[in-house]
Amino acid sequence: MEQPKRWWSAFRAEMAQVIFGHDTPAGKAFDVALIAAILASVTAVMLESVATIRAEYGTWLKTVEWGFTLLFTVEYVARLICVQRRLRYATSFFGLIDLASIVPTYISVAFPGTQYLLVIRILRVLRVFRILKLAEYVGEADVLMEALRASRRKIAIFIATVFAITVVCGALIYLIEGRTPGFTSIPKSIYWTIVTITTVGYGDIAPQTAMGQLLASAVMLLGYAIVAVPTGIVTVELSRVRRGASVKCATCASAGHDDDAKFCKRCGGSLAAPAA
Amino acid sequence: MEQPKRWWSAFRAEMAQVIFGHDTPAGKAFDVALIAAILASVTAVMLESVATIRAEYGTWLKTVEWGFTLLFTVEYVARLICVQRRLRYATSFFGLIDLASIVPTYISVAFPGTQYLLVIRILRVLRVFRILKLAEYVGEADVLMEALRASRRKIAIFIATVFAITVVCGALIYLIEGRTPGFTSIPKSIYWTIVTITTVGYGDIAPQTAMGQLLASAVMLLGYAIVAVPTGIVTVELSRVRRGASVKCATCASAGHDDDAKFCKRCGGSLAAPAA
Amino acid sequence: MEQPKRWWSAFRAEMAQVIFGHDTPAGKAFDVALIAAILASVTAVMLESVATIRAEYGTWLKTVEWGFTLLFTVEYVARLICVQRRLRYATSFFGLIDLASIVPTYISVAFPGTQYLLVIRILRVLRVFRILKLAEYVGEADVLMEALRASRRKIAIFIATVFAITVVCGALIYLIEGRTPGFTSIPKSIYWTIVTITTVGYGDIAPQTAMGQLLASAVMLLGYAIVAVPTGIVTVELSRVRRGASVKCATCASAGHDDDAKFCKRCGGSLAAPAA
Amino acid sequence: MEQPKRWWSAFRAEMAQVIFGHDTPAGKAFDVALIAAILASVTAVMLESVATIRAEYGTWLKTVEWGFTLLFTVEYVARLICVQRRLRYATSFFGLIDLASIVPTYISVAFPGTQYLLVIRILRVLRVFRILKLAEYVGEADVLMEALRASRRKIAIFIATVFAITVVCGALIYLIEGRTPGFTSIPKSIYWTIVTITTVGYGDIAPQTAMGQLLASAVMLLGYAIVAVPTGIVTVELSRVRRGASVKCATCASAGHDDDAKFCKRCGGSLAAPAA
Repeated sequence: MEQPKRWWSAFRAEMAQVIFGHDTPAGKAFDVALIAAILASVTAVMLESVATIRAEYGTWLKTVEWGFTLLFTVEYVARLICVQRRLRYATSFFGLIDLASIVPTYISVAFPGTQYLLVIRILRVLRVFRILKLAEYVGEADVLMEALRASRRKIAIFIATVFAITVVCGALIYLIEGRTPGFTSIPKSIYWTIVTITTVGYGDIAPQTAMGQLLASAVMLLGYAIVAVPTGIVTVELSRVRRGASVKCATCASAGHDDDAKFCKRCGGSLAAPAA
Repeated sequence: MEQPKRWWSAFRAEMAQVIFGHDTPAGKAFDVALIAAILASVTAVMLESVATIRAEYGTWLKTVEWGFTLLFTVEYVARLICVQRRLRYATSFFGLIDLASIVPTYISVAFPGTQYLLVIRILRVLRVFRILKLAEYVGEADVLMEALRASRRKIAIFIATVFAITVVCGALIYLIEGRTPGFTSIPKSIYWTIVTITTVGYGDIAPQTAMGQLLASAVMLLGYAIVAVPTGIVTVELSRVRRGASVKCATCASAGHDDDAKFCKRCGGSLAAPAA
Repeated sequence: MEQPKRWWSAFRAEMAQVIFGHDTPAGKAFDVALIAAILASVTAVMLESVATIRAEYGTWLKTVEWGFTLLFTVEYVARLICVQRRLRYATSFFGLIDLASIVPTYISVAFPGTQYLLVIRILRVLRVFRILKLAEYVGEADVLMEALRASRRKIAIFIATVFAITVVCGALIYLIEGRTPGFTSIPKSIYWTIVTITTVGYGDIAPQTAMGQLLASAVMLLGYAIVAVPTGIVTVELSRVRRGASVKCATCASAGHDDDAKFCKRCGGSLAAPAA
Repeated sequence: MEQPKRWWSAFRAEMAQVIFGHDTPAGKAFDVALIAAILASVTAVMLESVATIRAEYGTWLKTVEWGFTLLFTVEYVARLICVQRRLRYATSFFGLIDLASIVPTYISVAFPGTQYLLVIRILRVLRVFRILKLAEYVGEADVLMEALRASRRKIAIFIATVFAITVVCGALIYLIEGRTPGFTSIPKSIYWTIVTITTVGYGDIAPQTAMGQLLASAVMLLGYAIVAVPTGIVTVELSRVRRGASVKCATCASAGHDDDAKFCKRCGGSLAAPAA
């Protein structure tokens, strides 16, 4: 009675190595095939949305879409079967993306149109960085993430301030340009303020009165000036992470020291002989 | 006769702790309720400006607006009563915002339309940073402020130069494109120059002649290039403030240690007791 | 016979101190009056360009303009008389601006319209930085200038590369979108490329074909990416200039050394022991 | 029989010095003449694309174009003859540009219109940096290149993430704004997303529904925020390259050391006395 269970366990371990691993030839082949399938299916979804192409190849593309969905469903079930900690995978970033990339097809039977949400599949391609020179790329992503995490408080204050400015400017322009087409309500005027402060500037809504253009100029210059703030924050944090990354204390193994540090800032041990 | 005064004094202290404090449960509850009320009232003002919503719920939203205004009036009076230094509060940034967030409703009785200025209330929400992990957030805001203050002179020169360039380019484009719709006067042409130099580019006014497009290209490239200057200034100052971070070694008096440094990176002396 | 000459020489020195100096009360009063006159005259020129204002106050504004021009002509002659090295002043930046801010009025007698070039006067206001906290502001301007000068070669390569890319992309979009209104010639298409690569995006000319929109996307992403390069260059140079400022030679007290300088670049003294 | 060969070899060496060298008077004159010819021929191609000019000077410009093409063909053959390693030149960046700048004229006999690709010639002008203060400029270009190369992995992750976000946002806006003119398919909607996220904002396609404008605001703010990331990356790498550039190890001649490095990071030799 023990035999089938042991066989099953060996099979699961084997499958896990193919699906989640990137080191064995089979694992690499699986990864490449998966990414090819993702790109092909996203292309199919995108092409299906073009009216002239849908008119001619609509049925064919629908079939392809269902084929890929069934394939990804099988893959998702296989992942659930062979993974060690199921709940953790199912609630992880890529676990949720994997689920979100098959569900829309099934929903589209009841609600037509939702199948276009399948392009969420493209996010699965971000896995590619785990394959190509694995460690290095993930390390770089960590550096970017750490820089953003380290500056999250400054960025929160910055976004809250910009948001408050946007609402106040939106209300002001609504008061000034209330009769110009486009500035029909405060929410619409806030939309215009965001379009202006981010220097996008569609031009579908534009102030016509002298006062409105004066306020618009102020908003533009403000937007032009404050772009310097997030750039400064990210640069400084990136530069800190970057410099600190290479040196490690020989005594307490802590990292994050300055370039010119001679003694560990945590334990006071000398940093002069890291390898001695 | 002393009794009522003492009672009053105790009540004032208690009230001050609830309204201005963020540490007691009552103080925190008050803060959260206040922010909820602010967001709700701003939403009401914004919805009231949408024509279709005003047609249906206009009277109801007006009532809500008056309710919040009375509430904030009571709160403002309470703040004035319980604060130690009244004039200082009344003329502080948040004191003026508190006043400006109730006055428009009363003025709107005489001048309809001004009630939309009530969105100034949204600025009161910036108080939220005093509540959530108080010290840290305010510290980060100080870092941003110090960086901007340290670079205020460079920024002043930069703005004056950009302003002068804008006026000169505005006059030039007016001379060149005088007959193109939109370039009807120098002020309008300066408005166009600001729209272009900040890379907003609405497109409601655009040069039509070859000479005008040549000048426009120059203005665009100039705008594209000079955005580098404020970014550079802020980054350098941020990086200085960040690194400098107030800590000095008690042994060798060197500065420029990291925030989390415990030992001087130059002499290895402890940074733990900077004032001892 | 010596007497009148000596009197003349003393008068010239006195006048020079009033006109060029900023330290005596008379010199400061002259500076403030000059800037007020400049701003007033530029405002007059700008107002004169607005059709509705010109219709009503045209004659009056013309008179004001001539008044200011005569005033500035007298001032220019006075500067020429009292300055020590006349040719050097006349060919300096502010000397040429001073001349350019009076000439257009006289030319406008023959060629109407050129009087709008008088807004060049606004550039004279940049002198204000010599008055307000003189040394500090000019020092900051020097830091900015030095940072730009130090990075001039990198910026030259950058601009040449961007220019070459712009010409090539302009020709490509002309080939692709030749029949779309707006893309009527390569120069026009290059204008569109500049509008796009600087992220201004007027929208008066926009690609309509799929191929054109694909190329436009590439140009946009390119523009979005390369804005990082000048910003990086200026930031690094600013940071170098900034950091160099802190080290001072113990022997000759000169500043502005590189981070890694061990000997003073002016006197050759060791920089190793600044405080010893 | 040896004589003609030796003469040929001497002639080739002489020619190589004129064509590829920049130090002899003849070499410099050749470079200047070449750049003048390139700029003249590109101007001719650009002018030929303007309808009004083509109508009047079309035949003349065509002749000029053929003249320059024959000239550049002779030059290309001469380069091939006198260069030492022919294949290496022919497949190098400038070798391919040299070829691409003559081929379109010949092709245009069969396919009219392709002659506009001749503007590729403008890329040849980048050679100018080899002439003007040769070593320094090329050194600066190397610094820029090295900074970009060092940050290629972070940039790859950044671009892949932005690309994935763009595809997902494009599909979402297509679902929301499907009936608004312009959002006719997912590829068109992705084009709009790129126009918005890079803050170009033509305005030929703009969301009309409240939901669409909400999503557009999110995309704009995202685009505004993420411009900080490439800027930060390039700045940090530029700053690293910049600082390391000047110091070279006296023992192993390796470069790229930190400012404050005292020992070579490759061989451990002292950096203190680079020239001693």
